[in-house]
Amino acid sequence: MRILAKDIKQAAQEKPSEKVEVKGWVHRIRELGGITFVILRDPSGLLQLVLETPPEFTLETIIQAVGFPGLNDKAPGGVELKVCSLECISKPIGELPYQVNGDPGKIGIEAILDHRSLSLRNPKIRAIFKIQSTIIEAFAAYFRGQDFTEIKTSKLVGSGTEGGTELFEVEYFNRKVYLAQSPQLYKQTMVASGLERVFEIAPAYRAEKHDTPRHLNEYVSMDIEMGFIESEKDLIELEKGMLAYIFEEVARKNKNELEMYQATVPNGEAVFRAPIVPYEEALKIASAEAMAKGSGRIFDINPEAERFLWDWSLREHGTDLVFVNEFPRRHRPFYTYPLDVVRTMSFDALFRGLEITTGGRRQHDYNALLEALPKFGLKPENLKSYLSVFKYGCPPHGGFAVGCERLTQKILGLNNVKEASLFPRDRKRVEP
Amino acid sequence: MRILAKDIKQAAQEKPSEKVEVKGWVHRIRELGGITFVILRDPSGLLQLVLETPPEFTLETIIQAVGFPGLNDKAPGGVELKVCSLECISKPIGELPYQVNGDPGKIGIEAILDHRSLSLRNPKIRAIFKIQSTIIEAFAAYFRGQDFTEIKTSKLVGSGTEGGTELFEVEYFNRKVYLAQSPQLYKQTMVASGLERVFEIAPAYRAEKHDTPRHLNEYVSMDIEMGFIESEKDLIELEKGMLAYIFEEVARKNKNELEMYQATVPNGEAVFRAPIVPYEEALKIASAEAMAKGSGRIFDINPEAERFLWDWSLREHGTDLVFVNEFPRRHRPFYTYPLDVVRTMSFDALFRGLEITTGGRRQHDYNALLEALPKFGLKPENLKSYLSVFKYGCPPHGGFAVGCERLTQKILGLNNVKEASLFPRDRKRVEP
Repeated sequence: MRILAKDIKQAAQEKPSEKVEVKGWVHRIRELGGITFVILRDPSGLLQLVLETPPEFTLETIIQAVGFPGLNDKAPGGVELKVCSLECISKPIGELPYQVNGDPGKIGIEAILDHRSLSLRNPKIRAIFKIQSTIIEAFAAYFRGQDFTEIKTSKLVGSGTEGGTELFEVEYFNRKVYLAQSPQLYKQTMVASGLERVFEIAPAYRAEKHDTPRHLNEYVSMDIEMGFIESEKDLIELEKGMLAYIFEEVARKNKNELEMYQATVPNGEAVFRAPIVPYEEALKIASAEAMAKGSGRIFDINPEAERFLWDWSLREHGTDLVFVNEFPRRHRPFYTYPLDVVRTMSFDALFRGLEITTGGRRQHDYNALLEALPKFGLKPENLKSYLSVFKYGCPPHGGFAVGCERLTQKILGLNNVKEASLFPRDRKRVEP
Repeated sequence: MRILAKDIKQAAQEKPSEKVEVKGWVHRIRELGGITFVILRDPSGLLQLVLETPPEFTLETIIQAVGFPGLNDKAPGGVELKVCSLECISKPIGELPYQVNGDPGKIGIEAILDHRSLSLRNPKIRAIFKIQSTIIEAFAAYFRGQDFTEIKTSKLVGSGTEGGTELFEVEYFNRKVYLAQSPQLYKQTMVASGLERVFEIAPAYRAEKHDTPRHLNEYVSMDIEMGFIESEKDLIELEKGMLAYIFEEVARKNKNELEMYQATVPNGEAVFRAPIVPYEEALKIASAEAMAKGSGRIFDINPEAERFLWDWSLREHGTDLVFVNEFPRRHRPFYTYPLDVVRTMSFDALFRGLEITTGGRRQHDYNALLEALPKFGLKPENLKSYLSVFKYGCPPHGGFAVGCERLTQKILGLNNVKEASLFPRDRKRVEP
């Protein structure tokens, strides 16, 4: 019966004369005065094995060892296993393309992505996805706790709602369909149907030709939509609650993983005091920051502006989080609810200088939607499916989407969002 | 401040002289001796409103009402609201295509799917997705409790691992990629990487030209994979534990929803006593059942055989669940681990006469995989990505996938699996 590395210390303390079995990967091998020390890696951590005969395996071999657990202050974790018998379960074939047990900073991103079965063996790289798993769990738990229903909607759509140019085309039984850019239409359908509060965690697609450290062509979108809101401010409050909970869960469950990156997450107080800055004011703040640092004026909430707003919020409010609201109509899709002729009830959440969320209140009135379309150069006949959702009545509502990889990236301070995707897709990469 | 229908009784008992506000959909209107009774529907249930003036709205209007809560034995739930003021929030435009408040059996499946914002207002139709939400939650919770990590993998793949003919093609920046049929390669990569235990809940695609009540071209696949197993029997035990937990959670959280369908879920004992029948024996059992009922002999575990095996297991073992294992090699993909020359360490789970799971132990040895390929007419150069996962060592492992819609369908006894998909895709349907 296998036991995990993390449980060996207890075995050594309680039953040192009882043999135990461990299984895992050979992380490191060191010879010292005729004795071989093998560091074994399993999902729970590292363990020192002490061998009296030189091993016949190389690094990254998967082994099974039986022996006596013993305390040893010099061993990692203060414990080791004196091996009686050892078996190779699976051996690597040929040379490893890179060293697994070192600093992942020395492996390039392409090599990391090319060999996921190898790169994820590095505890620091694996930590990214342990944290991502917590983020997904906490997101779902938070919204379930607020009476949201989890939904799963189709990723194959007859047409796009966010604009037609950035869609991937799918050959579907002799006709063309598209990969969904978001579950926008579907989550709004759920609100109109009286389900009222829904969330979905699913892939979303953008056929953008970007090649930046903040873009993916396929990403995990964590979406919510809810009925009976007044404005985007209700959504911002909800997102604050959600982020505070996610950060709390990550801090609680992923202490080791955060430490590997010397990363911290904001506490609840820091989340709740995040400022809400109207778009025009955000431009002024970003411009003032820019000019104070010798850059030019800012005319748009672009990546540069997002970073300046972070500088400002850290200094003025002691928080990594800023909400920008009241985006102008021209910057938002046709379905965004107007605040007045120029502004909308919309918002972005910026975390550590990166937009992680876009959201807002939506237009729920069928006739108002019909009136809005021509202003956006859209025709009702091309949006039949979308419009039909509102034909039988729909409560005032809104929602937002959080980019899972971006949130992961910013929690850990990763340079590239691709590091936070197991199998990222970009213009060049579709393998593995 | 809005309160929900389900909380009105408590308000009537505790503070009948305090006004409360409710919001929801007009489910039914009835006039009786100058008084109008409106049944309001909100996410929590139904509530009778008493109006002294005839209303100016029709069925399915979204309203907001303020009034005094009062106990009334004749009202649904024993409580009603005497309305003081009322406001229309959103009105349906034109005639409803069908009646929302009736028996959904009278609405055809196509009409249900064409108008989801309407059909989901029917409490019985909505119940399907309340249960599906519990299934997804319970699946994730069960595997997290067993130290599995949730992963999210790409749905765009360079090639298929399950066979090349049933793939949807995607136009991806001037090259062709495919929609993933399963996360097979990716979840195995995770095992090889030492993450060891992973699960994923995500869409999967099959470009099959089926048009049956059991097939979808896009479905929600609940996948798991784990390292260090001996045989498919370890997986069957795991699946039993999972199913017992899911059923328990559905019974606990969805009592009302099950009642609407007069449905029950098996208890834990019934799940754990499910028989495990080797393929050849299953054929004999199904044939005997078939012949006893005047049908011909069974030569394959086809839908008919699955139903006969259910009859048998109900009668002989008092359970809705049967596992068939040891499928012949010719029926299983190349990566299935052999038990001997003919049989494999594979299994299906049949629930109430329908296959809801396929799984098995996989071949983890690189050289054994290379040897197996020609027997399946496959060439190593076409499976480079797949093979590379095993090159640096991989523990013995296996996994399975549960079809979320099929499990939902069989819990409720739905005729067609499409009823258990919010926006199903088949050969003809890509809208809404």
